[in-house]
Amino acid sequence: MPLNVAQKLIKDHLVSGSIEKGKEIGLKIDQTLTQDATGTMVMLELEAMGLDYAKTEASAQYVDHNLIQVDSKNPDDHLFLESATRRFGLHYSRPGNGVSHPVHMQRLAKPGKTLLGSDSHTCANGCMGMLAIGAGGIDVAMAITGEPIYIKMPEVMGVELTGELPDWVSAKDVILEMLRRYDVKGGVGKIIEYYGPGLEHLSAMDRHVIANMGAELGATATVFPSDKEVKRFLKDQNREDDWIELKADKGATYDLNDTIDLSKLEPLVAKPSSPGNVVKASELKNTPIYQSYIGSSANPGFRDFAVAAEIVKDRQIADSISFDINPTSRQMLTNLVQEMHIASLLQSGARLHQAGCNGCIGMGQAPATGRNSLRTTPRNFPGRSGSKEDSVFLCSPETAAASALTGKITDPRTMDFKYPKVKDPKDPNVDDRLLDKPLSYDDAQKVELIKGPNIVSIPEMDALPDELNLPILLNVGDNISTDEILAGGARVLPFRSNLPEISKFTFEAVDPTYYDRGMESKDRSGHAIVGGYNYGQGSSREHAALAPRYLGLRVVIVKDFARIHWQNLVNFGVVPLVFANEEDQHKLSQGDILEFKDLRNKIQNSNEFSVSIKGKSDKIDVRHTLSERQVNIILHGGLINWIRQKQTS
Amino acid sequence: MPLNVAQKLIKDHLVSGSIEKGKEIGLKIDQTLTQDATGTMVMLELEAMGLDYAKTEASAQYVDHNLIQVDSKNPDDHLFLESATRRFGLHYSRPGNGVSHPVHMQRLAKPGKTLLGSDSHTCANGCMGMLAIGAGGIDVAMAITGEPIYIKMPEVMGVELTGELPDWVSAKDVILEMLRRYDVKGGVGKIIEYYGPGLEHLSAMDRHVIANMGAELGATATVFPSDKEVKRFLKDQNREDDWIELKADKGATYDLNDTIDLSKLEPLVAKPSSPGNVVKASELKNTPIYQSYIGSSANPGFRDFAVAAEIVKDRQIADSISFDINPTSRQMLTNLVQEMHIASLLQSGARLHQAGCNGCIGMGQAPATGRNSLRTTPRNFPGRSGSKEDSVFLCSPETAAASALTGKITDPRTMDFKYPKVKDPKDPNVDDRLLDKPLSYDDAQKVELIKGPNIVSIPEMDALPDELNLPILLNVGDNISTDEILAGGARVLPFRSNLPEISKFTFEAVDPTYYDRGMESKDRSGHAIVGGYNYGQGSSREHAALAPRYLGLRVVIVKDFARIHWQNLVNFGVVPLVFANEEDQHKLSQGDILEFKDLRNKIQNSNEFSVSIKGKSDKIDVRHTLSERQVNIILHGGLINWIRQKQTS
Repeated sequence: MPLNVAQKLIKDHLVSGSIEKGKEIGLKIDQTLTQDATGTMVMLELEAMGLDYAKTEASAQYVDHNLIQVDSKNPDDHLFLESATRRFGLHYSRPGNGVSHPVHMQRLAKPGKTLLGSDSHTCANGCMGMLAIGAGGIDVAMAITGEPIYIKMPEVMGVELTGELPDWVSAKDVILEMLRRYDVKGGVGKIIEYYGPGLEHLSAMDRHVIANMGAELGATATVFPSDKEVKRFLKDQNREDDWIELKADKGATYDLNDTIDLSKLEPLVAKPSSPGNVVKASELKNTPIYQSYIGSSANPGFRDFAVAAEIVKDRQIADSISFDINPTSRQMLTNLVQEMHIASLLQSGARLHQAGCNGCIGMGQAPATGRNSLRTTPRNFPGRSGSKEDSVFLCSPETAAASALTGKITDPRTMDFKYPKVKDPKDPNVDDRLLDKPLSYDDAQKVELIKGPNIVSIPEMDALPDELNLPILLNVGDNISTDEILAGGARVLPFRSNLPEISKFTFEAVDPTYYDRGMESKDRSGHAIVGGYNYGQGSSREHAALAPRYLGLRVVIVKDFARIHWQNLVNFGVVPLVFANEEDQHKLSQGDILEFKDLRNKIQNSNEFSVSIKGKSDKIDVRHTLSERQVNIILHGGLINWIRQKQTS
Repeated sequence: MPLNVAQKLIKDHLVSGSIEKGKEIGLKIDQTLTQDATGTMVMLELEAMGLDYAKTEASAQYVDHNLIQVDSKNPDDHLFLESATRRFGLHYSRPGNGVSHPVHMQRLAKPGKTLLGSDSHTCANGCMGMLAIGAGGIDVAMAITGEPIYIKMPEVMGVELTGELPDWVSAKDVILEMLRRYDVKGGVGKIIEYYGPGLEHLSAMDRHVIANMGAELGATATVFPSDKEVKRFLKDQNREDDWIELKADKGATYDLNDTIDLSKLEPLVAKPSSPGNVVKASELKNTPIYQSYIGSSANPGFRDFAVAAEIVKDRQIADSISFDINPTSRQMLTNLVQEMHIASLLQSGARLHQAGCNGCIGMGQAPATGRNSLRTTPRNFPGRSGSKEDSVFLCSPETAAASALTGKITDPRTMDFKYPKVKDPKDPNVDDRLLDKPLSYDDAQKVELIKGPNIVSIPEMDALPDELNLPILLNVGDNISTDEILAGGARVLPFRSNLPEISKFTFEAVDPTYYDRGMESKDRSGHAIVGGYNYGQGSSREHAALAPRYLGLRVVIVKDFARIHWQNLVNFGVVPLVFANEEDQHKLSQGDILEFKDLRNKIQNSNEFSVSIKGKSDKIDVRHTLSERQVNIILHGGLINWIRQKQTS
């Protein structure tokens, strides 16, 4: 059977299941990527798992998110991450070296490989002929220990690109066109594969732009073939040997099909506050802007900055505009400096920021109240910029630069000068000075982890006991979100690497006594939580499972679960049960004690069993949908214990 | 009588008093400088004063402190400041344009002029043959309205410089030598004037380094002559016409004298946690560092960055070091880019930050817990870096760059290569694109102030009534600091432009009920506070007088006052009284009502009078030391009312 690129990548890495739409498949992971905001917990998980040395071909830890050091917490995290990468045999990209996705692409990405990353834009490296997938922290930790990842086999959607982009239109407009067509859920459960003659004029970095914002379509991954453009890119990085060709077989087909004629595209803009809210730039003309922002992993390339520089060169930005330039890597910044593009940007009136994610993730450069911000970043979710009720528009570097000159959202085709075509530098600077290589196995074993006062190892967690008497500490309603379980935000997030401290915020908005009662239950056999529909909806943060588990949570019984939180509960050894009869929720009260007997046997051998309530005659019937693998994880008390046992057995 | 430079500057600007040590003199102010952290309140004061247009020759508002925009507060401040500068006829240096002191020096400073600035390092522009003095916000607001400033005539200390600096030693080592000799109080009440043959080899920017850290000596001002080096500097700025010669008369003398032989100096370092804690760099060798930091108004020059760049060129910084580069202005950054020094720094492994004050004022780049930070900044007060119990060392760019290479504090003379002498660029880039010029008078009158939701005009305050019945809301002990009156820090400071909001924190640590009781008293005739010795010690922040005044404070009676807070109380119309008999404090209790009758007359006509306590037979004798001018200010209800009345009369 002729295969497309996505199918080839999957076939080459399949460890269980088969390439059938919707079936669970296990995939071997060759490379991993972590950034600092998620990476500290991944490193603590590796410590708790007792990993001796990374089992992947290449794993890299990047410091690109928390670069603002207003106190010692972020720099302490950086030192911890550095020590952990040395301890576990990972690459370490030091603060200032740049954004994970472009740096990984430049220095480590390899066609034909799989990449799992604890950042939702990990998919960007699909531009290199890789299968690159974003995941939760513990999934990446597992991958580093050599475990496969399990996903449902996605549909593959083939998008044929034809023609060539007109002047003033660039790769960002291609992905904005996809978002215009499919909106933010159009890619869910799909791998999007681009192919066709239009690829000839899209560089590897242009493809990065398109693959990156596959995340905004909700796609599992985006793949491109590995062709001469990928080869050229690797040659510029002095890594030509890492190139292999990877393209779809003749006659390969796709589950779904679409075509984009690149020559027909025009400058597009995503209006507030969704990347799917796409209109033509010309429809927004005269919309005044406070800010024009260039940077982020959605437009990380040399050409993205160079074209903006050429547009503003010898010109001046409009009055009152903040023209914010965010280089995506130190290597690229050096090239932009050497080619005099940075001088052009500065002379036009730009503010030059350090290399990193910065304003894209709300770390600086927030817009003023009620003002419009125009950005080349991937997302404009409400409040993501840092300002409440913000108004963020997404666009290409061409549109951002033209608008910086006029002070209004501007279709760059209306500029009264020629489109400045830019080329990559002839002999680009390649620079690994802040990308530390892994230590040897022997040297790694000698490294001590460096833990600032706010970094605390994950405490030991026990296996699932056979007999449990669990008081119900909470009986909550429908749609409890992970924000209600454990809030995000500036008050809570600084404790992301300190489980005992962050646990103090657990269920704070629901019942501020939960923490104290949980700590008390922990000293006995723990506790249970009961709830309604859609329990654990919202963010995927794993702390929302880990923190209650730390406080003694052993069993959750609800009407149904939000998918990711259910997975997180399993990962941390909490038994997720649903009521066989939903009205039973009302038979239970806070304070009731649930009596579980022979529990290990019951969840292993049956999907349904009954639970007694102490001092009551009624019994409650409960069900679970755990696979054998998942039951096994819970019996061990979670993934950390499971992998530890596996490594020593 | 032959005059020195300081005396000439004073004589040329004297509006009252005479050049006699210790006597009050009034000085005409030609130029002012405000930065954003203090400037928002200055602009609100100008609004409250009803200013139509600045009366100074040049006043500039810089945005250099609060550049981290994690929400809309800082950018809202920037827009407010921009609108206020347009309204009041000031220059506006937009965010990203650089640090006030070097930008002012480059674009606006003029030999022979006076400069008053609401930043303690305003004294830096003494390098240009100016009398440049740091002051409180309302003093600067008054100067903008054309009022003189009143100070006590300082002593003038003449420091003769001889010889030439050796290789690897630079201007920073000169001022560190002064701090080694005189420590942080050695300059109090003095103007320090440098002269002599050693000046020949110190550029205007080198002198900026020395004048800037005159603040660390506690000096009122530092002055240099205006000579051919100042002329050369102005020529490079295309401002040769602004140059005049200004030097001491032959035979001029000084109140105090010292000499520094520059050829004898060696690299010096100020140890934690005082700029006066100076030792030889060689004494600290092998002290490991986490960070090497270059930038700030204490080492702002092209040469300061260029020499660091040449030292690290084609070399690599040590493992784990954070090498932080903070350009001081956009213009200078552009020159450094064009001369390829930025490329050298980046290739060595540097992190390049935006142009501004940044880590020097704790806005980013805080060191990790327990790690040493080596900086070219002016101050290493405990915690100023943002990290608790920090360990900050101050040094020259040469020492910082050499230490970045070795990872330890290093005497740069031990480097195994030649000292790289650097020169200013031949044809430096001059750039006013982000330095907006004042509007014309007529255009300015049409401008509306732009106030984000957190910017609130200063409410009207009434004149001093003749009869007041004031409940004592607090009776506090000795040494109450302005931090106890109104704390600083990240929780409180964001409300610096919002008097009603910031007032909620007043005396919070002393008595959390004060705010509510104050608000209540405000609706009647206000209240009084009673205290012990050294009331209002610590920071000079004027909010510590303004906020209690807003809450109804009319009279403070204590044993004695800290000088600056006393001045601030006067400025905002609070009557500062001291007990004639100190033991009287104990006759008074919280809740007692002080009955003031014929108060206006009493403070005008006498320095001592008595006050009745309602329902008690005892009377309390009180005194004041207000001048006629100050009494007049208090009668009007503070400086704002006083100047408003003066403008309309």
